[in-house]
Amino acid sequence: MKFSGEAPTPTAATTDDSTVTTTTEALLNPFTTLEEVQLLDTTLRDGEQMPGVSLTPADKVDLARELDAAGVHLIEAGSACTSAGEREGIRRVAAEGLDATVTSFARGVQSDIDRALDCDVDGVNLVVPASDKHVETKVGSTREEVVETTVELVEYATDHDLWVEVLGEDGSRADLDYLEQLLGAGLDAGADRICYCDTVGAAGPERTAEIVSRLAELGPTSLHTHDDLGFGLTNVHAGLKAGADTVHGTVNGVGERAGNVAIEEVAIALDRCYDVDTVELDRLYRLCRRVAEVTGVPLPPNKAVGGANAFAHESGIHTDGTLKDGTMYEPYPPETIGRERRLVLGKHAGRAGVAAALAEHDLEVDEDELREVVARVKDLGDRGKRVTDADLLAITEDVQGRERDRHVELVDFTATSGGNLPTASVRLRVGDEERVASGTGSGPVDAGLEAVRAALAGVAFELDSYHVDAITGGTDAVVTVEVDLSRGDRSVSVSASDADITRASVVAMVDALDRLLSAEAAEAGVEPDAVTADD
Amino acid sequence: MKFSGEAPTPTAATTDDSTVTTTTEALLNPFTTLEEVQLLDTTLRDGEQMPGVSLTPADKVDLARELDAAGVHLIEAGSACTSAGEREGIRRVAAEGLDATVTSFARGVQSDIDRALDCDVDGVNLVVPASDKHVETKVGSTREEVVETTVELVEYATDHDLWVEVLGEDGSRADLDYLEQLLGAGLDAGADRICYCDTVGAAGPERTAEIVSRLAELGPTSLHTHDDLGFGLTNVHAGLKAGADTVHGTVNGVGERAGNVAIEEVAIALDRCYDVDTVELDRLYRLCRRVAEVTGVPLPPNKAVGGANAFAHESGIHTDGTLKDGTMYEPYPPETIGRERRLVLGKHAGRAGVAAALAEHDLEVDEDELREVVARVKDLGDRGKRVTDADLLAITEDVQGRERDRHVELVDFTATSGGNLPTASVRLRVGDEERVASGTGSGPVDAGLEAVRAALAGVAFELDSYHVDAITGGTDAVVTVEVDLSRGDRSVSVSASDADITRASVVAMVDALDRLLSAEAAEAGVEPDAVTADD
Repeated sequence: MKFSGEAPTPTAATTDDSTVTTTTEALLNPFTTLEEVQLLDTTLRDGEQMPGVSLTPADKVDLARELDAAGVHLIEAGSACTSAGEREGIRRVAAEGLDATVTSFARGVQSDIDRALDCDVDGVNLVVPASDKHVETKVGSTREEVVETTVELVEYATDHDLWVEVLGEDGSRADLDYLEQLLGAGLDAGADRICYCDTVGAAGPERTAEIVSRLAELGPTSLHTHDDLGFGLTNVHAGLKAGADTVHGTVNGVGERAGNVAIEEVAIALDRCYDVDTVELDRLYRLCRRVAEVTGVPLPPNKAVGGANAFAHESGIHTDGTLKDGTMYEPYPPETIGRERRLVLGKHAGRAGVAAALAEHDLEVDEDELREVVARVKDLGDRGKRVTDADLLAITEDVQGRERDRHVELVDFTATSGGNLPTASVRLRVGDEERVASGTGSGPVDAGLEAVRAALAGVAFELDSYHVDAITGGTDAVVTVEVDLSRGDRSVSVSASDADITRASVVAMVDALDRLLSAEAAEAGVEPDAVTADD
Repeated sequence: MKFSGEAPTPTAATTDDSTVTTTTEALLNPFTTLEEVQLLDTTLRDGEQMPGVSLTPADKVDLARELDAAGVHLIEAGSACTSAGEREGIRRVAAEGLDATVTSFARGVQSDIDRALDCDVDGVNLVVPASDKHVETKVGSTREEVVETTVELVEYATDHDLWVEVLGEDGSRADLDYLEQLLGAGLDAGADRICYCDTVGAAGPERTAEIVSRLAELGPTSLHTHDDLGFGLTNVHAGLKAGADTVHGTVNGVGERAGNVAIEEVAIALDRCYDVDTVELDRLYRLCRRVAEVTGVPLPPNKAVGGANAFAHESGIHTDGTLKDGTMYEPYPPETIGRERRLVLGKHAGRAGVAAALAEHDLEVDEDELREVVARVKDLGDRGKRVTDADLLAITEDVQGRERDRHVELVDFTATSGGNLPTASVRLRVGDEERVASGTGSGPVDAGLEAVRAALAGVAFELDSYHVDAITGGTDAVVTVEVDLSRGDRSVSVSASDADITRASVVAMVDALDRLLSAEAAEAGVEPDAVTADD
């Protein structure tokens, strides 16, 4: 069975490998002559066109600085024709004095170039229709008119000292002879470079290679790909092999529909497989998190580079292997992109992972106890639960038959909200004594946290993270709240679930505090009722 | 500048294109001889190994039925060695009598095969270490011993009438001569097929092609790729061209670290670019949603096929084009995968998109009014806001100078929670009259909804959707609540933001009700104070 009857023989793609030795490193680097690839980041333009995303001028400046610090070569800061707020954002990015070339998107009309000039950018990404569908149906023009307008606009822009890239919109669905004529005319008129656009993400790598190999004969060629078929990066790879030298992308692959190719994936893939330099890799993770925060588009856990799980290991086989050798189940060290490895527990947990987690909590168990703890961690996981620190500790206590005295326990909790002054009260059992306190806050959960703080006056703790998964369904959905609390060098994660979000939140906080204080007391060898103020 | 000095010339990859005409359709299909590619779905095994994901036996049966209905050829239902709950799940999937071949993962030990046999599966995916790192450091064995064990286990499994696929773990980092020897020995011992595993997602397409072209000479070869470098699908493409005929993947690309290749992307890409059949495409969207629900791993909006935005359009240029011709900014019709197109409003909105949205609400505006509404929608978007139906309606009323009398208005709201009986009360102005009512619920928001229902006794409405984005940061974070309410054929979406989640929720619900009742009254030509019971 063959994928393609008349395709090149399988070895054709690797004929350049003849000199390669059989060591892993060499085989992962089949190319021998390599040069730099430039990245154009369009998070602030094509990324922002994602439905529901809107960046303020301050957001744009902040992200542009981060991109510049990472060494991105070109930053498309927005589309000057969109709105006054957008122009303000572009103007401020252009005024930052960044190393990167700062550009604005411009449609094929002179007023768009004038607006870009108003923003004082270094250049424009001039987009003109290339496919007949876009030339005729969308713009209501003709092929000849579009070429004529393009030439005029390129001359106008270069006369005004702008760097110009001409993009043939919907180029992947265009007649290739016309696309060559159109973009070639742009270069002849003085454009700095041209761009192959797979605007609707419809092309495969063969089509990309075919087009780009012809465009690259004309002059410097960029790639603008989308991920609708999942081929965003495949097409970048095919386009670079065919002679392109610059890649458009967005951080986290934000953008219209399925998004643009993710620039952090382009950077890491080129580094790891081809030793091609693009940007500072150790700033990638930071960049991914910033863009997720500012755009409000969450990073899926299973996203390359930036996802929460990209360097997390749960399954027994993987955790065991990773503890023996960090490279066992990782394609590259997490430090490469500025982040750390994470081991988590669940139904696939094995002995090594559980033992490592217990050691982190300074808990010693014998072989029989470890076997039992592993079995119960897996059992909890089997029931569809995430296994937190608190779950592991509770299981271990039970297995070791230790009667644990709680240091802090929630006896009663009431919150009132809806009006101007959300208020909450708690009754806690702290050691042998009962404490009642109240607090106000911006909402009932915040008020609950204040009430807990007041009841434990003087016991310092930090709420490092408060997280609620998205709630979807009805108002009676069970909500899971996860909190990370720390006190000094010690931290703990606890989750609680309830249809009442206020109750789940306060239960999780109190349980976390109890864990921290118990661990501290155990270490100091003091009794539960010794919980007092730090000072 | 060249990406590769000694790479094949760009046209090498497209030599099979010589007979292709210049029409778009033909250029997108450069292959002329095509055959079926089989898909093996491992959502229930490798997908479930994703940290935080745990599927119950009932979940597994449910998803297996969906996969089977879509025509997936092979379903890896789990890893029988994991736990008793896991075996129960695999056993129940195997007992469903599906068309698909149902398998279990098995490590290279006989007890794993015995456990798979206990579950009555059709076959096993026998995983044996292939790279020296895995052979020596992880398993503490030798190359020779691994070959010997593999042969014994394949014979044992086939003797028990199991279909057997031998996977060389970490194959992409293995010595290729040894990988050939190992997997070749598996085939000689009676295995049905072998699998190239890029276990850690470290390989590029050249390495994949090099290995797979040699393995495919030995016998039927599968591909198992991960997305750590973003190359999951690129490597599938390279592997199929090199002679593989089966692809392992997971729905939504769930899985360890950055996940496996997404099976829905494999299916749509093969269909669109190569006319290769795999599964029923019109069941893909449904499958993506089910897996997101059951695993709890959210579908990012910018995900190909399943993401909320995959067929959504906001920017003016795109919406305008799409309204003229659905194919203008879409790679394929959304109906292909069983879903619909969506137009949304925001800072990039243009005249055509706003006009279409107004028409949906039966609102007529003149040219001047439309221009002003567009400007104000963009202005709201500029400030970083999503623009909902309610926002659009409020803007339009204001532009048209219509004094809108609210039908329902929230005057006062209090919720008490934390204890066993969350309770809420509301004071609403309904037309000219004030109504006070209370309710209880599973939490303060649910109680608030009940109080609103009681205050509007007899006015039927449905809360179609209640959604809160994930809350991250502190307990004082501003929360945005989005509700979809409907009454008869009319529905409306409204969002409200507040640091108090209970207040934001009730404000959104009351505003949505007000919009529905106002629209109804406007149609019937009655006064605001005419809000009464339906019966």
